[in-house]
Amino acid sequence: MASEEFLKQSKLPSDYEDKKQKMCQFVTRNADKKCVLVTSGGTTVPLESRTIRYIDNFSVGTRGSASAEYFLAQGYAVLFLYRHRSLEPFSRHLSKINVLDIIKSSHNTLSVSEDWTSRISAILEKYNQVKSGGTLLQIEFTTVGEYIHLLKTAADAMRPLGPRAMLYLAAAVSDFYIPTDEMPEHKIQSGNGPLQISLQLVPKMLKPLVKEWIPQAFVISFKLETDPSLLLKKAKEALEKYSHQVVIGNILETRKELVWVVTATESSPFQIRLTPEEADSGVEIEKYITEYLAKMHETFITRADSVK
Amino acid sequence: MASEEFLKQSKLPSDYEDKKQKMCQFVTRNADKKCVLVTSGGTTVPLESRTIRYIDNFSVGTRGSASAEYFLAQGYAVLFLYRHRSLEPFSRHLSKINVLDIIKSSHNTLSVSEDWTSRISAILEKYNQVKSGGTLLQIEFTTVGEYIHLLKTAADAMRPLGPRAMLYLAAAVSDFYIPTDEMPEHKIQSGNGPLQISLQLVPKMLKPLVKEWIPQAFVISFKLETDPSLLLKKAKEALEKYSHQVVIGNILETRKELVWVVTATESSPFQIRLTPEEADSGVEIEKYITEYLAKMHETFITRADSVK
Repeated sequence: MASEEFLKQSKLPSDYEDKKQKMCQFVTRNADKKCVLVTSGGTTVPLESRTIRYIDNFSVGTRGSASAEYFLAQGYAVLFLYRHRSLEPFSRHLSKINVLDIIKSSHNTLSVSEDWTSRISAILEKYNQVKSGGTLLQIEFTTVGEYIHLLKTAADAMRPLGPRAMLYLAAAVSDFYIPTDEMPEHKIQSGNGPLQISLQLVPKMLKPLVKEWIPQAFVISFKLETDPSLLLKKAKEALEKYSHQVVIGNILETRKELVWVVTATESSPFQIRLTPEEADSGVEIEKYITEYLAKMHETFITRADSVK
Repeated sequence: MASEEFLKQSKLPSDYEDKKQKMCQFVTRNADKKCVLVTSGGTTVPLESRTIRYIDNFSVGTRGSASAEYFLAQGYAVLFLYRHRSLEPFSRHLSKINVLDIIKSSHNTLSVSEDWTSRISAILEKYNQVKSGGTLLQIEFTTVGEYIHLLKTAADAMRPLGPRAMLYLAAAVSDFYIPTDEMPEHKIQSGNGPLQISLQLVPKMLKPLVKEWIPQAFVISFKLETDPSLLLKKAKEALEKYSHQVVIGNILETRKELVWVVTATESSPFQIRLTPEEADSGVEIEKYITEYLAKMHETFITRADSVK
């Protein structure tokens, strides 16, 4: 109910019909594969309807964009729903360099400088393989309203896949928002003195997602906290409340080396941790997270099939 | 007073001493040129001290990064103070493409595909010229506190230049912030229901900037509004209040084709507007803004010298 109300009052994303069609075609085209929806990056909460200011969060999509690559490597078709200007699979490896620093000009051609050739070649090969295979679809969002519309649309598109659909909800979705009818139209003026902002709770979309939108899928949500004492308790509570399969718990400061895989059935969580050597040599924890989840997903599919 | 208090309670940026030293060396090295500080992009306002959420604004640094390029073309040394991950001069032209889409691999070398060669060559040539000339220094900020610290540091470094220093304050600086002692340490929990945020006014730094930090410089501030009826009135008020030289006024929807140059001395503002043909052919309004300001700056220097 709350979620329907929320969707009704939030604007549809631009190019909504086009995005919807792309998602449906993508799922149909990859019907022979397992398919994962990876959501990535943070959502914004506009404070004005002609938006100048908004609330955001620190996520740049590191977890989601890396995970998308590793799911592709394991043969998944990946629907990547990501925040505009956040990191993307493959190109993320170049996000910290200025391309103009690594391009050389000679005899009317531009080439990549030698120090970078082997590194970029390896990325380019994987990227082109995925591109020609058509196994990756990228769809952008910005606001929390757009995100939730597109999440529902993706779930609708993937529903026919039954248990072969996985949802890996790594996006950092805002818990709060300002309803359209409480939002000022114009830029908030500073001349009026200190500012009070009242935010309402965004309804928890996991509930209708698991119950109604795509009930047969394998669903993973994320819990990021800064206070470790809250984390596992909150993960367990989420599993009870939404009846989905997995919560990945992580702590802000250590999220790149350590996560907990929490399920309703196991009493203690499975810990995935990079060794200091792995971290130093550039191994990414998303490799292990996605491998572990792909195995769980395999078991989940087998069980679902045996019940039929 | 308020500004000193604000600076005292906001954390210094990381690598502050290094950034300060770079700015001083840059100004010294370019002592034979006119020098402009271009600030660009939006500032964040953290809502928690271990920051997950923050208030941001929509700026991605289009105005600032384009203006920096055009000031360089006019012989200025440019100190570019910009928001982390916002657009940068030169590389901004590649910000909308995925580099992996335009690189081809053959015979163990990677080259830029032919359709892109001439366009990127033109950018690369200008970029390398600026790089070897040492006329551009880029310094990053994220929060409003970091921005104001670095703005003061840049002003201090440029003060010896007297009237040959220009400050082009295009960054979209937050008007509001949460003082450190009112900020929760940990992530705000959604379980506690709707959220009230109380924000204090950020002190207007233009006042100490013009009066104390760099009193002889040529200073341009920006006013962005969504309501045209407020714009010119507010621009004039700012000039009276802060006694600087120029306000560039612009409206959110038309800011790429139309701006007003407002000064204390002229009763009606000078309008800079792209023709539809110019806009279609890719002419950028920043070219005209910077040319107009460079001329005003020339007059400003001549007058200042004649007073001596």
